[in-house]
Amino acid sequence: MDWKPDRQSHLTIHVQIIEWMKTRIERGDWTVGTKLPTQRKLAAQFEVNRSTINLALDELKADGLLESKVGSGTFVANNSWNILLNKSQPNWQQHIEASIHKPNYHTIQLINEFEQKDHIIRLGTGELSPELLPTKKIERSLKSLSLESRAIGYSEPQGSKKLRSVLCEYLKKRGIDTAQENILIVSGALQALQLIAIGLLEEGAIIFQDNPSYLNSIHPFQSAGMRMIPVQRDGNLPDTLRIAKRKKQSLFYCVPTLQNPTGCNWTIGERQTLYHTCKQLQIPIIEDDVYHELLFEPSSSPALKSFDQSGQVLYVGSVSKTLSPGLRIGWVVAPQSVIQRLADIKMQTDYGSSAVSQEIVAQWLSSGLYESHILQLREQLKLRATFVENILEEQFKHIATWKKSEGGFYIWLRFKEPIVNKAFFLNLLKKNVLINPGYIYDTSDLHHIRLSYAYASLEELTVGLNSLIEVIS
Amino acid sequence: MDWKPDRQSHLTIHVQIIEWMKTRIERGDWTVGTKLPTQRKLAAQFEVNRSTINLALDELKADGLLESKVGSGTFVANNSWNILLNKSQPNWQQHIEASIHKPNYHTIQLINEFEQKDHIIRLGTGELSPELLPTKKIERSLKSLSLESRAIGYSEPQGSKKLRSVLCEYLKKRGIDTAQENILIVSGALQALQLIAIGLLEEGAIIFQDNPSYLNSIHPFQSAGMRMIPVQRDGNLPDTLRIAKRKKQSLFYCVPTLQNPTGCNWTIGERQTLYHTCKQLQIPIIEDDVYHELLFEPSSSPALKSFDQSGQVLYVGSVSKTLSPGLRIGWVVAPQSVIQRLADIKMQTDYGSSAVSQEIVAQWLSSGLYESHILQLREQLKLRATFVENILEEQFKHIATWKKSEGGFYIWLRFKEPIVNKAFFLNLLKKNVLINPGYIYDTSDLHHIRLSYAYASLEELTVGLNSLIEVIS
Ligand SMILES: Cc1ncc(COP(=O)(O)O)c(C=O)c1O
Ligand SMILES: Cc1ncc(COP(=O)(O)O)c(C=O)c1O
Repeated sequence: MDWKPDRQSHLTIHVQIIEWMKTRIERGDWTVGTKLPTQRKLAAQFEVNRSTINLALDELKADGLLESKVGSGTFVANNSWNILLNKSQPNWQQHIEASIHKPNYHTIQLINEFEQKDHIIRLGTGELSPELLPTKKIERSLKSLSLESRAIGYSEPQGSKKLRSVLCEYLKKRGIDTAQENILIVSGALQALQLIAIGLLEEGAIIFQDNPSYLNSIHPFQSAGMRMIPVQRDGNLPDTLRIAKRKKQSLFYCVPTLQNPTGCNWTIGERQTLYHTCKQLQIPIIEDDVYHELLFEPSSSPALKSFDQSGQVLYVGSVSKTLSPGLRIGWVVAPQSVIQRLADIKMQTDYGSSAVSQEIVAQWLSSGLYESHILQLREQLKLRATFVENILEEQFKHIATWKKSEGGFYIWLRFKEPIVNKAFFLNLLKKNVLINPGYIYDTSDLHHIRLSYAYASLEELTVGLNSLIEVIS
Repeated sequence: MDWKPDRQSHLTIHVQIIEWMKTRIERGDWTVGTKLPTQRKLAAQFEVNRSTINLALDELKADGLLESKVGSGTFVANNSWNILLNKSQPNWQQHIEASIHKPNYHTIQLINEFEQKDHIIRLGTGELSPELLPTKKIERSLKSLSLESRAIGYSEPQGSKKLRSVLCEYLKKRGIDTAQENILIVSGALQALQLIAIGLLEEGAIIFQDNPSYLNSIHPFQSAGMRMIPVQRDGNLPDTLRIAKRKKQSLFYCVPTLQNPTGCNWTIGERQTLYHTCKQLQIPIIEDDVYHELLFEPSSSPALKSFDQSGQVLYVGSVSKTLSPGLRIGWVVAPQSVIQRLADIKMQTDYGSSAVSQEIVAQWLSSGLYESHILQLREQLKLRATFVENILEEQFKHIATWKKSEGGFYIWLRFKEPIVNKAFFLNLLKKNVLINPGYIYDTSDLHHIRLSYAYASLEELTVGLNSLIEVIS
């Protein structure tokens, strides 16, 4: 939609607009029933007068291509398409609505869309700032990369042997003793969840999780027909799990280290309790450990997988939060039968992950580049966390509460009043400030926003938090 | 499974074997009911005497960890796990069996597995030989790659703008006039099919296709609950489609240019007929066009998408067959509403494709490197095709028929007798020759194998085809 009429053209502006709109309909970009932006918006976008837009729309309505509905706007008319070309086009909207995978929430679609715009201040983005990414270092490491022909062919089902063997060494430092055969390389941690959903669970299976949860903001399990059950991790947990579980297959999804969205970091006791409870009830665990390198005090937070001698824990990691999300490299550590199953499905859905990305990650992990980068990164994130906490202390103390960050990207800011609804989100967006509202992680939550100190620049953080205060008052 | 006992260890060999097997069971790599390899195989693998294996197995059986079933072998015993650790482990096998995605056929799993072994001659592999991949050139192009921080962050839903804009230019040469908004970058053509399956079709929808078909050898649509209907493209096609379609959603999948597995290339007439028939019946088409650059005579084979003014055709391409499958880069061209839907699901399942791979492809396409590479490649494939056709002419004329290749990788070799069954496949595998039997593309077909002249070296092709003759006689 960044087309504009060409002022040099031999066609008048309004005819150009008509032709452009016809092409949208003809190509199926605007399907039947699509609502057009308001005349005001169209005028602003095309940088023309509203009267020119009016002229163009009138002509298209007269041709039967558009129709107005009083009070609700202008729409692509029912048989626009037949009129236009006397041909018929597939009804894509109907296809989309009947299909299997759930759409993203509208708020998340908006987030994905507005994250691409340069003028937006991103207060919630779960991603390292461009300044924090080791872009030049990656560029330099590309220069010394040597490729083997075999490596850039179709991959082995489980992914590059080199990377898997480097990972075995790397995971030892996390207390995880594993073997190449127990590792599957995936295109990011999210893909691991998707493969587990379609490869290890029956329809109707139960996924237990903390509430709020990252999993509510995407739908790998929900789209595969699983039920998400939020649980409290308190003394009643064993009973809750036992009752809910019944005869259904089930699985416990958790992010014990620096949870998304709360930033919460489980104590050792909490880790042991969950592990042993699930073990006793034979409920497998997915441990999503993508943030552990970013703990400010790394020593106190062992992976659940490090307790696991019995293939109870499916361990998921990635380099997205530390090195670069654009590489799309993650891993699963699990019993061999599980890994082979997931690898088989991966071969059926995308034939493996990018060979070049795998080479880069292997190089970074094995050369020590990765670890020295993490050390620096941790310090920079600490500075950013303190910076934001200072602003909060100065400006938000009377209206909100939060906990001091222990690492990672997030502060889970709780407003005393339930103000964080969709209107609030949109009001901020009007001021060019994008937030991740709590309701995308827990639909009933109108108190929280997930604040990220990792993405926006310090200046943007200051301006963005100011706008937040303005919108609230 | 490439572990061997350590002859320097203070433990005796048979105790090491016991410990190793216990660890397999403990970790869940060998689940209950797993059948162990024969004693002979274990002895060969561990490079020990059979009597040592015997001793180890006897002890494990006495402990209740293994059990023999007369005549059928040694298995991991039912309550081995409880005995071993007095703990319980998740029943992964049950999880796997109840889950949603179909497993690959056993033959295909074997192919995926044996393709990794160095001593195997691969007569069927649908992949460029390491000699034909421009590995050094890619390595060189990495040295001149400049990355932007933004490019290695999380991607835009539709993929790199740079690559999409380069693709618009590239696709023009294929007669396809499109815009950035109508393109989605995917991790290979296969992923495009997977996204279409879960994003555009209801359960029970119908996929029409030629028979045999590539789609029978993977299961993106089948696993999503779609019905695959093979059709003959003859005078009855309109009626066949009309009757089968009824009230169900449907879609026609085809590879008009150098089909997999037959190598068949549709005439212009066939292309037009299919396009117009589907258009009239409002059946959308997936045009899988991954082989078109490899036509020996490029001029005569327009893409169906080049006829399409109405968003009827979902066009799929990739660089896997031309540049490198390890990059995992492909694309879909479709109406904007479809592209946005597929992009939304891609964001929910893997957050986009490798940024570095996208940069490489953009560089190759825009610099002309890609096209000059294709010109060379085509000549080399022509030579290889002729080489294999000469061998066939000399040795297979009395037992088989085939058509001269028009491009791509494949010759669809038809044996006069129905000899190509699983036993035949396994017999060849014993001789270290791996084939793609026709039955993975059409379960009832015992006449064909898909011969690929693209992968094995000329020497291997000679030896492999000789073994084929031997096994037949
Ligand atoms: C808890 C958690 N798991 C998984 C992911 C996805 O990571 P990746 O980019 O490796 O797919 C994220 C990123 O948002 C996350 O926060
Ligand atoms: C017809 C056809 N489509 C798609 C694919 C998959 O290609 P990609 O590696 O781009 O996923 C193949 C490769 O085997 C193929 O033969």
